[in-house]
Amino acid sequence: MISDFKRFLIGRPMKSNELAEEKLNKVKALAVLSSDALSSVAYGTEQILHVLIVLGAVALWYSIPISLTVVGLLTILILSYRQTIFAYPTGGGAYIVAKNNLGTTTGLVAGGSLLVDYILTVAVSTSASTDAITSAFPILHDYRVLIALFMILIVTILNLRGITESATILMYPVYLFVFAMLVLIIGGGYQWLTGHVQAQTPEYGIAVPGITLFLLLRAFSSGCSALTGVEAVSNAIPNFKDPAPRNAAMTLVMMGLILGVMFMGISLLAYAYGIAPATEETVVSQIASAVFGRGFLYYAIQAVTALILFLAANTAFAAFPLLAFMLAKDRFMPNMFMVRGDRLGFSNGIIVLAVLSAILVIAFKGETENLIPLYALGVFIPFTLSQAGMMKRWITQKPAGWLVPFLINTVGMLTTLTICLIFLVTKFSQVWTIFLFLPIVIFIFKKIHEHYRDLADELRIDIATEKPEPKGSVIVIPVAGISQVVKSTISYAQSLTDDIVAVYVGFSDEDMKKMEEKWEKWNPGVRLIVLRSHYRSIIRPLFKFIDTVEWKKAETDHVTVLIPQFITKKWWHNLLHNQTSLLMRAYLFARQDVKIATVPYRLKK
Amino acid sequence: MISDFKRFLIGRPMKSNELAEEKLNKVKALAVLSSDALSSVAYGTEQILHVLIVLGAVALWYSIPISLTVVGLLTILILSYRQTIFAYPTGGGAYIVAKNNLGTTTGLVAGGSLLVDYILTVAVSTSASTDAITSAFPILHDYRVLIALFMILIVTILNLRGITESATILMYPVYLFVFAMLVLIIGGGYQWLTGHVQAQTPEYGIAVPGITLFLLLRAFSSGCSALTGVEAVSNAIPNFKDPAPRNAAMTLVMMGLILGVMFMGISLLAYAYGIAPATEETVVSQIASAVFGRGFLYYAIQAVTALILFLAANTAFAAFPLLAFMLAKDRFMPNMFMVRGDRLGFSNGIIVLAVLSAILVIAFKGETENLIPLYALGVFIPFTLSQAGMMKRWITQKPAGWLVPFLINTVGMLTTLTICLIFLVTKFSQVWTIFLFLPIVIFIFKKIHEHYRDLADELRIDIATEKPEPKGSVIVIPVAGISQVVKSTISYAQSLTDDIVAVYVGFSDEDMKKMEEKWEKWNPGVRLIVLRSHYRSIIRPLFKFIDTVEWKKAETDHVTVLIPQFITKKWWHNLLHNQTSLLMRAYLFARQDVKIATVPYRLKK
Repeated sequence: MISDFKRFLIGRPMKSNELAEEKLNKVKALAVLSSDALSSVAYGTEQILHVLIVLGAVALWYSIPISLTVVGLLTILILSYRQTIFAYPTGGGAYIVAKNNLGTTTGLVAGGSLLVDYILTVAVSTSASTDAITSAFPILHDYRVLIALFMILIVTILNLRGITESATILMYPVYLFVFAMLVLIIGGGYQWLTGHVQAQTPEYGIAVPGITLFLLLRAFSSGCSALTGVEAVSNAIPNFKDPAPRNAAMTLVMMGLILGVMFMGISLLAYAYGIAPATEETVVSQIASAVFGRGFLYYAIQAVTALILFLAANTAFAAFPLLAFMLAKDRFMPNMFMVRGDRLGFSNGIIVLAVLSAILVIAFKGETENLIPLYALGVFIPFTLSQAGMMKRWITQKPAGWLVPFLINTVGMLTTLTICLIFLVTKFSQVWTIFLFLPIVIFIFKKIHEHYRDLADELRIDIATEKPEPKGSVIVIPVAGISQVVKSTISYAQSLTDDIVAVYVGFSDEDMKKMEEKWEKWNPGVRLIVLRSHYRSIIRPLFKFIDTVEWKKAETDHVTVLIPQFITKKWWHNLLHNQTSLLMRAYLFARQDVKIATVPYRLKK
Repeated sequence: MISDFKRFLIGRPMKSNELAEEKLNKVKALAVLSSDALSSVAYGTEQILHVLIVLGAVALWYSIPISLTVVGLLTILILSYRQTIFAYPTGGGAYIVAKNNLGTTTGLVAGGSLLVDYILTVAVSTSASTDAITSAFPILHDYRVLIALFMILIVTILNLRGITESATILMYPVYLFVFAMLVLIIGGGYQWLTGHVQAQTPEYGIAVPGITLFLLLRAFSSGCSALTGVEAVSNAIPNFKDPAPRNAAMTLVMMGLILGVMFMGISLLAYAYGIAPATEETVVSQIASAVFGRGFLYYAIQAVTALILFLAANTAFAAFPLLAFMLAKDRFMPNMFMVRGDRLGFSNGIIVLAVLSAILVIAFKGETENLIPLYALGVFIPFTLSQAGMMKRWITQKPAGWLVPFLINTVGMLTTLTICLIFLVTKFSQVWTIFLFLPIVIFIFKKIHEHYRDLADELRIDIATEKPEPKGSVIVIPVAGISQVVKSTISYAQSLTDDIVAVYVGFSDEDMKKMEEKWEKWNPGVRLIVLRSHYRSIIRPLFKFIDTVEWKKAETDHVTVLIPQFITKKWWHNLLHNQTSLLMRAYLFARQDVKIATVPYRLKK
């Protein structure tokens, strides 16, 4: 029944060789991998305006040069990552690039930051989307956490079904969002050009008293939150159809173009329509209502915006399991992240991401806005390390014409490094925790690596000299009386060895004597040892006895304890039997060298 | 560590022969078994007044004859139960008496109602005690449920420590409560006799317009809630020191006397001081403040009252596990209720009672007042059945001088039956659920009984003819590669049988070929079967293979699957290994006749 339900939710299991069919074409890939990046258009401009407004509406014109700088930075990043794609055609996330060129620890810093960042992405974007919904329907405000958790559940199920199917579903809202934003920008631009806009725009280029470099940098770094998600494509190259690197590079450039146009368009419209950030209405909402009025088009834009924010979480669901897989392959994360599930996705990575982000949403009660700077910094650290890695690579390998790409990566590295520093300086109170969790994550990676290395050393075998050696064996059967179960257990033991001991634990002399007499009468061909228990525990006397057996035997001999276990017809019947056998298993399991065999006895009724 | 914590909470384990020392003397028994009954003094009179006040203060004098009737009923019950104690010296709860004389189903009705009633007792009395505390400290009002749950936790721990120790702790508050009530009654009585009371008392014996039989009966049945808990002594006879029946009978009579005096005293004082029930202050509180003023004595009485209500829950904790034990002995409840824990109490009964009453407290958010009538009815049903059983016994056995005790039980039965009917008529909306849960509980009892009967039939063995018969055996070892683990597992298998098959599940032709070659080179003396998996599942191909093995073998042969399991040095290392072995166990467990042996491999690091 559980299995049927799983089939219904997730779909039929797929064969391993169906993997090729699961690869993404460019149109689908853009949808799966860009929703995170594109969704930031919904809040990028607003973040800049929020910082500038402290100096009054006259300062808002600074948003235009700042937005241009952000777009410039975007161009550098796109060019830079395009180079990475061709240099690492099998998937060149920041982790791989940094590890290969700058050493394992640097790679782990990049990988660890990204891993934590994907969890933040899911928490932040589902919360933001919930905010969009509850702003439209205030009645739902009390259920914010539940709504966000429901969203996480939906994305999780989509991803467990497999990436192609989730891509098919995701294509529509992503392209709808792009279409809606373009309609807004073209419609707004047309009205502005034809002089239909009556708004007080702050005069462009006038120096505002009180403006400081610190403030401008703060506004710029806030705007950089629009660039989160750009790295998704280069991590996911193995998911692309062949030729994967070319397709990935084209997808990346497309994404950059769309993102740049939409971001700059919204910033320009905000300036042209003289829009100031407000607490109760988003900038995009203000523009849409100014351009189209509060009609169908307005509500459509709002709905699609809410949807894209929700889908941004999906990008993390595509990226996290892949990164976890790479880390697991290098033995820095548990093996289970390498196992492909029924639908060929890395189910464990998907589930772990879902659980951790759900915990974040619950812990922050759905108010994750304060996590945004931390989340942006968590992206820019790997950006920086990845480009530093590429610089090292150009210098080391020096292929023909390496200077231009080297310069591109250098500029990129310096820019993203600067942004990291700006984040640390201007928003320290919101990002300091990175100094806490990053060392912890790296420590865990290294501990795991150590364990797997030790394990491999310990299990290694010299097949030329080391062969299995049979030894003597004794079987111990705890019995509670004489019944069909005991008969069948002894029959089984006798089919394996002649050295069998039945052990009975009695609570009184009378018990013990009775049992001995009955056993003698039965005479099953197995000797019975009767033990006395003072504490009504069957397990402790049995332990002592096994110790004695082990002590008598040569060290290399095997002691097997047979534990009969009822298999009941109905689940609730399990409650009716003392779970002594379970308890015995649990205790014995902790002991050196005792083998435990569970002998099922299937009840007929 | 967990074990140490358990020791700290509950104390050292005790030997079975320490049980005799755990028996209760009369002074302790009175404390353990009477807190439920005595605590009802805190609300008995008030319940009567609450019904009468609807006709105005002039009707309150009726409380005196009604209270006298309740005390009369108490006398009948005490006499009646005294007879039961001597007739059933090994513990004559309503379950035993009804079952022995009126048949099993009637016994189960009595037992089932009492069992449910004990759960209600714990929920109702901890909630009532919480109310007393939060009335004194309104700041705690938001934490009502937590406080009630904390109380349940405390009583549970006390009872898990063992009954003598909990009795020692409980003696003080119970006797303190009795002392406090006597001080109140004597002090109040003295002031009234010396004419120091200035209060408007309703004139005694004046017929009040609008008085109906229905109302008087309702008031009377409300007053009967003061009698709940009287049955506790007769259920608990095995807990008494020898001579148990005599000691129990004396304890019962003492409890009846104290309860009668306190209840009547409070009723008289309430009348003498002209006290009317109020929503914001209890009747006892009003009397205490009228007699002593709001000084130390007043607060002491209030505190002790709150404490006794809390301890009433303890009576249920003494009675529930014993009744569950008796039902389990008769195979109507799971075996686990017969197991004595480390401290010789029936731990499972204690824990189940704690959990169920905690669920009730949570479900009702600590407002369990509406459960009181249900709880009272749940007591009077077994009262009636128990006395009907005694009547049957006198008629059947006809010992010398049986007529007087027969008449006592007849009067008792008729009275309690009448009270049951009054409850049903006057408070149907609050007690109808008994028609729902009582049939369910009895159905469960019968189903459990059926299962144990079937099981016994199935397991019965004819020791003269049925002996164990050894058969052939084949051992299947799933292997994932060649390592020390595989070597040690094969060594073990070879010590048991020669018929061993190693099975490797590969995901690609390349994998499979490589493994075959390596195995041949190693040549461990065991043949290897290589299977292909299309779905990345190791378990499904393995299953199919085992089916084939079973099909080839004679039906009676044994198939054993050896599953190696890493025993890690540190708990978190468990997360680092694919829990394939656990999964295999879970799947294989569901299969007919496959034996599963877990072979531990202890990691050194």
